[in-house]
Amino acid sequence: MTIDLGERSYPILIGPGLVDDVRVLDEAVPRRDIMVVTNEVVAPLYLERLLRGLQGRRVGSMLLPDGERHKTLETASRILDALVVARMNRDACVVALGGGVVGDVAGFAAACYQRGVDFVQVPTTLLAQVDSSVGGKTGVNHPGGKNLIGAFHQPRAVVSDTGTLRSLPVRELRAGFAEVLKYGLVADAAFLAWLESNLAALLALEPDVVARAVRRSCEIKAAIVAADEREHGARALLNLGHTFGHAIEAAAGYGEWLHGEAVGIGMLMAADLSSRLGWIGGAEVERVRGLLRRAELPSSAPAIGAGRALELMAMDKKVLAGRIRLVLLARLGQGVVSGDYPAQVLHETLASHFGSAA
Amino acid sequence: MTIDLGERSYPILIGPGLVDDVRVLDEAVPRRDIMVVTNEVVAPLYLERLLRGLQGRRVGSMLLPDGERHKTLETASRILDALVVARMNRDACVVALGGGVVGDVAGFAAACYQRGVDFVQVPTTLLAQVDSSVGGKTGVNHPGGKNLIGAFHQPRAVVSDTGTLRSLPVRELRAGFAEVLKYGLVADAAFLAWLESNLAALLALEPDVVARAVRRSCEIKAAIVAADEREHGARALLNLGHTFGHAIEAAAGYGEWLHGEAVGIGMLMAADLSSRLGWIGGAEVERVRGLLRRAELPSSAPAIGAGRALELMAMDKKVLAGRIRLVLLARLGQGVVSGDYPAQVLHETLASHFGSAA
Repeated sequence: MTIDLGERSYPILIGPGLVDDVRVLDEAVPRRDIMVVTNEVVAPLYLERLLRGLQGRRVGSMLLPDGERHKTLETASRILDALVVARMNRDACVVALGGGVVGDVAGFAAACYQRGVDFVQVPTTLLAQVDSSVGGKTGVNHPGGKNLIGAFHQPRAVVSDTGTLRSLPVRELRAGFAEVLKYGLVADAAFLAWLESNLAALLALEPDVVARAVRRSCEIKAAIVAADEREHGARALLNLGHTFGHAIEAAAGYGEWLHGEAVGIGMLMAADLSSRLGWIGGAEVERVRGLLRRAELPSSAPAIGAGRALELMAMDKKVLAGRIRLVLLARLGQGVVSGDYPAQVLHETLASHFGSAA
Repeated sequence: MTIDLGERSYPILIGPGLVDDVRVLDEAVPRRDIMVVTNEVVAPLYLERLLRGLQGRRVGSMLLPDGERHKTLETASRILDALVVARMNRDACVVALGGGVVGDVAGFAAACYQRGVDFVQVPTTLLAQVDSSVGGKTGVNHPGGKNLIGAFHQPRAVVSDTGTLRSLPVRELRAGFAEVLKYGLVADAAFLAWLESNLAALLALEPDVVARAVRRSCEIKAAIVAADEREHGARALLNLGHTFGHAIEAAAGYGEWLHGEAVGIGMLMAADLSSRLGWIGGAEVERVRGLLRRAELPSSAPAIGAGRALELMAMDKKVLAGRIRLVLLARLGQGVVSGDYPAQVLHETLASHFGSAA
């Protein structure tokens, strides 16, 4: 399948065993100088296979430490140093092998090196395969907030080897599922129903079910990104649950909660708020809660209090001129971006999930 | 005048007394949160006037240390910190008040903050007014090379107050003139002749002459940038003298030579090489040398030897697949980008300017 962005269009290749598939890699990765960026957990599993698949090119590689707390400007700077030391030219290509952190930081380094070099994503987590590797957002965190530093830089290809998900810790697999669920909630009621029927098979990594879930997620994201590459409008739909979720992640300190876990609860809050506004019914909120439970994702937020939660949400960058615009649900399968709700209803929703204590 | 880049088009406002002209600033700078980035030399001269001109907005400001050696990722990171601390949102605007270093590093920070916020250039040096503030190249140096880290990020306006050039050290004024001369050499023989006639008035900062030189330089740059925003082709013409010049700057250590001084000699070498190829005559090389001398710009390169110079040039990022493409002169007023010359002729040119010793 293809992400359609005019001259910045690129293919997404999905299936088992692609990480060392020479034919696929020849399509995705230019036959020029390559710098593979990966991390200390992924490298022992897949680096050798990828390097074998890339033979015939001058290839360097570098390992990052594992974890969100290393998604920093300093880490991006280390990648830039490696590109300089390897004397990579403007026609070099950075290949990110790993999860969302590796992809985001390596993509940002590719965006900045010589004002932008080519970049290929080889995501090895479900979250990265369905979300972070697609759409061109790259970046690093700042002590003041997540992804505050970054660039829009589209990859020239995404190679999603669904076989690599077998090595993923089950907690991360479940967290990735939250983003899959997001696509059904904001854009496709039929996909949502299909997920309800195939949840067990998906989490058991049945190859056809996984490939279909990844493909459909990428299709939905691709359509939204094609309509709004730089997030001026529709792309904000992809933030369903994220503003609430950021408050959870920020309160606990980055890394305590997996991103997908926080987003999962955030989506439940968005559904709850939509129901309080009379847009969807209580039964539909329970369908969301039921999916989280069956996926063994948390559905209870930490008791940080509604006031603190609101404060953290207001610091999130989706705030425009002080007014919190949220992604809500007009119905299951149709998200809407809105700042047009009574503040009191937001407060009640927050109090019901975060508690009312300060 | 306007830089025509479709939806990224922007105005360049040129004239004396613009730095505190409320009407001009209201056209150029949005009425939103503003972060003025300047440096410790420029701030005492113009910051207060600019802030007065920006009244009615929430404005923060920060001072960088002066000098090319501070054009680093660390300095960009300090600007990003300041934006976070001031809780600037995605609709904030960074205003760069100063020379090329301030503009390049502040522009790069604006490109990275929240994946890109608005950015206005208020250049106060001749170099910045005729070159670095126009065209959207932003970036910082790396110990391995100049401008190795950066982004293409167009400003939303450029405000060139030609009155600020009165406070510029004469050495910097002369170095800026080298870039003005460049436009005549690559693109406009009539402008070149006009410069020969008006050199003394220009260096004496006669207001009409300065404004015309800045405007014509920006027009030429604008036309070239509009044809080739991301430097895939014609934009490389703007690098006349730069590949040779980089060798001079790198050999001496950044900061010893002013950029324009090194570029001036580099243009003379490009003319010399073009003459050795029979494209222009010796008299035309002497016209270039004469202009440098009359502007009291250096015309002799340091004796680093042809071999070392070639090595430094090959490290420059304009090298594509190991082959040095240079901007040469088909005639005075018409640059051409070419890698199609005998290596021996390049070597002779380098030996004649840099000496033949290792």
